[in-house]
Amino acid sequence: MIFFARRLHQQIIEKNSHLCIGLDVSPEALNDESQSIDKVIDHSIKVIDATFDLAVCYKPNFAFFERWGADGFKWLENIVDYINGKNILIADAKRGDIGNTAQQYAESIFDHFGFDAVTLSPYMGSDSIKPFIENPEKGVFILCRTSNSSAAELQDLQTGTGLLYEQVTKLSVELNKNDNVGLVVGATAPSEIKKIRELAPDLPLLIPGIGAQGGDLEKSMQYGNANGDAIINISRGIIFAGDKSSKAIRAATQNYLNQMQRIMNG
Amino acid sequence: MIFFARRLHQQIIEKNSHLCIGLDVSPEALNDESQSIDKVIDHSIKVIDATFDLAVCYKPNFAFFERWGADGFKWLENIVDYINGKNILIADAKRGDIGNTAQQYAESIFDHFGFDAVTLSPYMGSDSIKPFIENPEKGVFILCRTSNSSAAELQDLQTGTGLLYEQVTKLSVELNKNDNVGLVVGATAPSEIKKIRELAPDLPLLIPGIGAQGGDLEKSMQYGNANGDAIINISRGIIFAGDKSSKAIRAATQNYLNQMQRIMNG
Repeated sequence: MIFFARRLHQQIIEKNSHLCIGLDVSPEALNDESQSIDKVIDHSIKVIDATFDLAVCYKPNFAFFERWGADGFKWLENIVDYINGKNILIADAKRGDIGNTAQQYAESIFDHFGFDAVTLSPYMGSDSIKPFIENPEKGVFILCRTSNSSAAELQDLQTGTGLLYEQVTKLSVELNKNDNVGLVVGATAPSEIKKIRELAPDLPLLIPGIGAQGGDLEKSMQYGNANGDAIINISRGIIFAGDKSSKAIRAATQNYLNQMQRIMNG
Repeated sequence: MIFFARRLHQQIIEKNSHLCIGLDVSPEALNDESQSIDKVIDHSIKVIDATFDLAVCYKPNFAFFERWGADGFKWLENIVDYINGKNILIADAKRGDIGNTAQQYAESIFDHFGFDAVTLSPYMGSDSIKPFIENPEKGVFILCRTSNSSAAELQDLQTGTGLLYEQVTKLSVELNKNDNVGLVVGATAPSEIKKIRELAPDLPLLIPGIGAQGGDLEKSMQYGNANGDAIINISRGIIFAGDKSSKAIRAATQNYLNQMQRIMNG
């Protein structure tokens, strides 16, 4: 048995990459007025074919699949089969529910679909997280300080013993008995990444917000990898790069990878 | 156009009912070792047939559908078609994501599936809520003070200007420009229901936690309906009542309804 954080670390070393690619394909982004599911499916496969040896993880956001209903879930099932263990698969589902229901979600995401990890919302507390971390081979990334512009409304509230996101960090460290708990921290909040890294030296960080959202790649890499591991998620900056051809997608991926390697070596 | 809160109120008056039924059917709960999706589908239809004239809302929790993958989403689509507007349908999906993604979820839940309302998690702030409240005919219920035992870990943190769940209440009141924002408050926390009702006199409350979770029906009804409307969710106490026959399910439903009517009239 390989604990989740260990498996993630091995892939980072083997591929010399900290890259996670968000598989968030919509007909609007493809300028497809026919709203055809076949076109978004084809594009997702094109992205995987062009990048699988460069990416450590893929992170499909469930919203982009659910909007197609049952057909979208079939597509998601096919993506997991297609990747077939070549990359670590993170279900970006942001789940958070009572224990009984969280157990159903864990079965869905880990057993039915076969994902390696899932993103979770902490608002309902540890009950809503525990069913996902019982199996050390499967991991979670708990929303801590997110990349969106209204993130601070609740997450930066002062709670007496630190800001709310710092409380979430401490709770996550306590829950990390099986070396399989990580945190989501937005690249748009680099000073928060630094603080979170101090509070949680060993937890893997999943850092979205580079590209369309304007996050800071250099600081995210430096602070995020000061201890533990950080993976950087890019979605739109890769999957819709240039003319959206395989060549343009691979070139954008290689470019991000080069930047990351320079930062790590510099 | 009928604003969501108004439509909910009309159904409550017409049916003389505050009942929401949670459609959370698993093979484990049916003691079905064959793990057959046909049996859970049949049971969900049996519950609807036995209760649709007594219930204001149905609330399918997505976890119980997602665990079957594409087949589960097909089942969920069929349930929405089957109810065909006779009841208000709340997607218990607890979504919360960045604006771009929240927009996809809103399209999924309101346009693809055709739900009337959705539950949301507030952790990412107002960005993650706004795409769901643009259409006044569709509603949201934002997690405020939940029914589970670890709810207090974050929700009861003191933030300087009130506990975290009180901040969420205030944010929700601010967002309620279209008369379509409600709150989720657990029946296991009656004194919190009272405080939330004072801070948000007009917002509809969705109150889960009666039955298996041990919530207080009388106080939930009294405090919840002191102003505005409260709907009480029952899941396991109805859908698996007695020998799980239509007769037992309807008897349990009628019994809860009688209790609620006595409380409202007393």
